[in-house]
Formats: sequence, C-alpha cells, structure tokens
Amino acid sequence: MCCPKLKAMNAPDLQTVFIDLQSRSYHIAIRGSLFDNPLSYTELPPARSVLIVTNTTVGPLYAQRLQCALQGKYANVHTVTLPDGEAFKNWQTLNLIFDALLAHGCDRKTILFALGGGVVGDMTGFAAASYMRGVSFVQVPTTLLAQVDSSVGGKTGINHPLGKNMIGAFHQPLKVVCDLDTLKTLPQRELSAGLAEIIKYGPIADLEFLTWIENNIEELMASDPAALAHAVKRSCELKAWVVAQDERETGLRAILNFGHTFGHAIEAGMGYGKWLHGEGVACGMVMAAHLSQRLGLVDAVLVKRLTLLLQKAGLPVTGPRLSDADNAGRYLELMRVDKKAEGGEIRFVVIDGAASASVRTAPDAMVRKVIDLCCLAT
Amino acid sequence: MCCPKLKAMNAPDLQTVFIDLQSRSYHIAIRGSLFDNPLSYTELPPARSVLIVTNTTVGPLYAQRLQCALQGKYANVHTVTLPDGEAFKNWQTLNLIFDALLAHGCDRKTILFALGGGVVGDMTGFAAASYMRGVSFVQVPTTLLAQVDSSVGGKTGINHPLGKNMIGAFHQPLKVVCDLDTLKTLPQRELSAGLAEIIKYGPIADLEFLTWIENNIEELMASDPAALAHAVKRSCELKAWVVAQDERETGLRAILNFGHTFGHAIEAGMGYGKWLHGEGVACGMVMAAHLSQRLGLVDAVLVKRLTLLLQKAGLPVTGPRLSDADNAGRYLELMRVDKKAEGGEIRFVVIDGAASASVRTAPDAMVRKVIDLCCLAT
Repeated sequence: MCCPKLKAMNAPDLQTVFIDLQSRSYHIAIRGSLFDNPLSYTELPPARSVLIVTNTTVGPLYAQRLQCALQGKYANVHTVTLPDGEAFKNWQTLNLIFDALLAHGCDRKTILFALGGGVVGDMTGFAAASYMRGVSFVQVPTTLLAQVDSSVGGKTGINHPLGKNMIGAFHQPLKVVCDLDTLKTLPQRELSAGLAEIIKYGPIADLEFLTWIENNIEELMASDPAALAHAVKRSCELKAWVVAQDERETGLRAILNFGHTFGHAIEAGMGYGKWLHGEGVACGMVMAAHLSQRLGLVDAVLVKRLTLLLQKAGLPVTGPRLSDADNAGRYLELMRVDKKAEGGEIRFVVIDGAASASVRTAPDAMVRKVIDLCCLAT
Repeated sequence: MCCPKLKAMNAPDLQTVFIDLQSRSYHIAIRGSLFDNPLSYTELPPARSVLIVTNTTVGPLYAQRLQCALQGKYANVHTVTLPDGEAFKNWQTLNLIFDALLAHGCDRKTILFALGGGVVGDMTGFAAASYMRGVSFVQVPTTLLAQVDSSVGGKTGINHPLGKNMIGAFHQPLKVVCDLDTLKTLPQRELSAGLAEIIKYGPIADLEFLTWIENNIEELMASDPAALAHAVKRSCELKAWVVAQDERETGLRAILNFGHTFGHAIEAGMGYGKWLHGEGVACGMVMAAHLSQRLGLVDAVLVKRLTLLLQKAGLPVTGPRLSDADNAGRYLELMRVDKKAEGGEIRFVVIDGAASASVRTAPDAMVRKVIDLCCLAT
C-alpha cells in the first residue's frame, strides 16, 4: 500500500542549494519528509521506467516508500538491492545494476535513483554515466556523509584493488533530495563519519563555520534536527561554490580532498570497509594538518583545535599501523597511486590557517615524520 | 632496436580530416608510413608515461614499432596485449587495461594508444574515459572498419551478454592516425567487413560516393592504395560532418546506425565474434533497405543496387536463422534491447533514396515479413 506524504514542497523550512554548472545545473533540496513525497520528483522528466538502486541495509527501511512516491509519475518502478559496504564497491556489484537495467528493458530515458549512502551514490552515478553511454540519475542520500559530500558534485566511480575510486566518471545528477529524517536511523558511527566531512569544510573554506561546529558539536552528535539542517545546508553551499568553479577538478576542487590522501591510504591499507571513509578522512586531516604545520603554513593552535573537534565528534585521530616492517613506507606506497599524484610524486592538500587550502608536494622524510607522529606505536 | 621512419608529415599525399567539436576537436591523419613515424605524435601533450593497448593479432605485427616511435617523446612506454575478438569485449578484458595502468603507476596525464581494430579502440576509449574519471587517448586504427568508422566520433564501450555496446561513454580521442599501410596485413574477410561501413555512407549521405564505390569495388577488394585512400578519407569526412552536428546522438547521428539494429541482433544472436561487426551491418542494411521499401520510402532499384554492391564486396546479404521455432520473433526480441529503442518500441534507421536517412518505428508484422524474406529458409 502506498501512502505518500503530501506536505507542500514550498513549506517555509525547505532549504535549497543551487549547483551552477550551465546545462548541468541542479538543485539540492534539504528538509525532513522529502524522499517519500511525490512532490519532490514532479519536475523530473518523463520516462517509461525508472530503477531504484539501494542496498541491503537501506532498502528494507526506505525502498518501498520511495517506490510509492515514484509510482504516480512513472509506470514501471523497479528496484535492485546491492550488498552493503565499501568492500562491494567494485565491478561485480556494478554489474548487478547493468543486469537489472537490461533485464527490465530500460532505455535511454530511464532514470536511476540512488537510495543510500556514498557507495550506493557513487556506483549508481557511474552506472548512469555508462549505461547506453549515459542516462540520468537522482541522488537520494540517506547518510550524513552522502548528504554533505558524495551526493553533490558529480563524482562517481568504483574502487580497484590497487586504489580507491580509480575507475569512474564525472556525471551530474538531475537533483539531490536530502531528507533529514533518514538520518534518524543512522548508526552513531556513521553519523560521526559524516561529521568528518562537515568539519573538513571549516579549515579549507570557512573558519566561522568551524567555530559554529565547535559550538554545536554536542547538538550534532545528538542528531538535533536544527543543527543538522544548518550543517548540511552550509556544507552543500561550500561544496557548490567550489564545484561551480572547477567541475572536473583541474585545480581548486582538489581542496575538497583535504585529509583524503592519507585517508585513502588508511582505507586501502586496512582493506576496504574496515575503516569508514569518514574515519579515514578524519585521521587523514590530522596528518595533513601536521604536515601543513611542518611546512610552516599553519600554527599548532589550529592543528590542536581540529584534532580536538574530531575527537569530540567520535572520530579516530591516530592512524593505524599498516605495516610492521616499515609503516610510513607502506603509507607512502599506497599514497603514490592517489589520483592527485603526478609523475610518481604525491600531492597533498594543505591548509594555511586562513580558510583556504592548496595542493603541493612534500619531502618524503617530512611525510614519514608526520606519519610516525600520528600513528599508533608498535 | 628502434628505426623510426622520418618521412616528412607534410608530404603532399598526407590527407587530414578535421572533427569540429569545440574544445574536443581533433584531426584524422590518413596516409601510409604514419603510425611508426614519431612526427605523427609531436603535437601531443607531454606525459610521464603512456600505455599502448593492442591485441594478440596486431601486437606482434606493430606494437614494437609504435613503441619505438613514442620513446623519443615519452620516457615510459608500456604495452598491454588483450585477447583478440568481439567475444572479449567485456569487463574482464577491460580490467586488464586498468590493471596495467595501476601496475605501472600511470597518472592523470597518461595517454592511452589504441593500436588495433574496433574492439581495441572501443575498449581503450572506455578505459581512458573511466580511468581516474578521464585521461586522454589516441586512436591508431589498423583495420579498415576502425579507420572509416569506429575510431572516429568518440563512441566507446563494451558489450553486455544482453546487448552490444550497452556500457560505455562518449570520449573523443586527441587524434586519429590512419596508417593505410597497416591494411596490407588485413585478412580479406576483415577488408570486406570494413567495406560494409564504407558502403553505408552512400545511401544515408552521398549517392555520388555510392556510385564511386560501385565503379571502384574491384580496386577496393584488391587493396589498391589510391582507392583505399579515397574511400577512407570520404568516409571520415562524412562521419565528421554528422558527428559535428550531433556529438551525443540526440538526433541526426543515429543515421550512422543504418543496418545496425538488425546487424546487432545477428551479432548477439549468433554469439559475439561468430559474425564480424561489418558482416552483421551488411546483412542488416539489406534488411533495413527492404523495410524502407515496404514503408514506401525507397524503390526496388536502390535496394537491389545496395544488395549487389555488398555481394561484390564479399559480404553476406542473407540473414542467419537465430531460432528454429520463431526466427523473426528472436530477431525482434534481440532488437528490443537496441539503444535506439524507446518504451519497448524498436526504432529503425530507414533510407529515402535521396541520400538521407531517418529513424522511425515499423509494425512488427512488417518487420517479420522483412526478416522472413531476408533470412535463410529452414
């Protein structure tokens, strides 16, 4: 039985953020009671059939309700359910989406709906970019991390055993529907992982926002709706501002990867899925902040502020050991396959203490010292 | 030992065709002695490493010579050799390219070189479109079919068991290097397959060219260099003219698929690799021409001319039986997953006898009659 909620879409608490990318522009809608509301989808183009892509965790909670919301507009609403987790962000799982699209006879007008966290969004987006050389998709992110980061900006892809997100495409969604109510079912560990990406926007782009997060970290950790609404909106605004200037990451956009070079090494080195992406990024930001300090770009006060805030957000700030023999060497080895690397040189996102960031190399010896300082002792 | 040929690139017999796609524009160079000439690559951007992608048939003939030509400009020239044939145009083979890219530490500046026929070109292009969300590539087509069709226009992709070229991307090369000398080693069957795509341009775009092919079919079948040079150049010009107007196939470009709807059904129905792509297209054009006639668009004379010319080009003009029970039904079933299909309706490219083509549906009963007429009897 379908019971769509029909709360008017222009309710005063509906927040929208516009991503300005010429013909590929789109809106992010932010509020509760959005994802299962048919009005969230009225402006989408017509199609004979659509496919909801979700996973074994989110699907049982929300897939049916999204299906109901879409059935008024689309004659055929299909669903494919993927295994849950970063460990399944690979070819085999991606093929489940293609199998479903072809089994249901989906054509070039078909729209995919990514219902889930960052992994579902990245894989659905890449499937949409590649199916028949490109169909449309909509992001319906159900985790905090996906709402504030991965669902916005059009980066899609899968992992390769030798590197994270190595295979993918830039493919912008038609719309992003951030339903804050879906965060109510989010486990605390995943909430924290999302906070890592929210905190990230402070040192790279907005120190006022960093202060606001410091002042509201308890509310955020308690899933206070007003606090989450502001954090999601401000994060999306900051991301939109960066992406609109550099959609395909030829320059500025790389700053959004603050903490990610170290973080990806942790994720890959531990085996995908052991550490959540946001956890790797949290620990990676501490390392990148220390590196920035050693490069003389930032003082110890900001490094300490950032570390303390991440701790309060329930996030790891000490790196795992990735090798008993040569731990720092293993980090370096894993970081050399980072997408920002050029000519074998690792390029790090560093902060300057004035709410801006840049990309640069650093001597191996200095990076080793930072890793030694920030990792668990043997 | 590297012995690059240094024949000047501005020799009077060098032909070039320009593909006008704004920031994605590029040139096709056509002549003998091109692919192993370092001067063919001087205008390409710098890179720390490049990867030649070839197959087990073409690699032993030409990979070393291309490697030599590139070594003056690029410090690291790697090669990956794929199994040969349409049957291997899948995820597993595509992953061999990603494995090689990552094993060699290739970064975002890496350039891929597709050295081979259409399958190598399509897979290399898709790997380039997807590796780190997009790197550059160069087409070095060594078959007639690839030189006149698949290497030009940026369509890349792989097959899915349920449909041909179902997964892919639009990704334009930096350059296309058509070396006519590589056609000297082409088996007669593959030469004929290439002629199918050359003949295709006549009824859809240029009846004068159709007449020229009729008058020169013996020279073409004998690999006469001057005849091949003209056929390749005129085909590329016609394709460039279409692609420049409709890069992503929202309209006009679909006419290049004349014969392909029936042809893809034959390829898939027989099992990829049994029929060459050009053979499927040849037979598919006969079927599409008959369909055009039944729709009252074209007279029997042109259908007969086309059929006769394809026969002279050593191509099949009678369709295989794909099912003992319901042959036409099996064709229809396979054609419903064609990328041009919309809402379950098959859309055919039909010709009008005045050197233009269009896309339209046709009643199943009429399509069945055409298939019955054009297929082998039980």
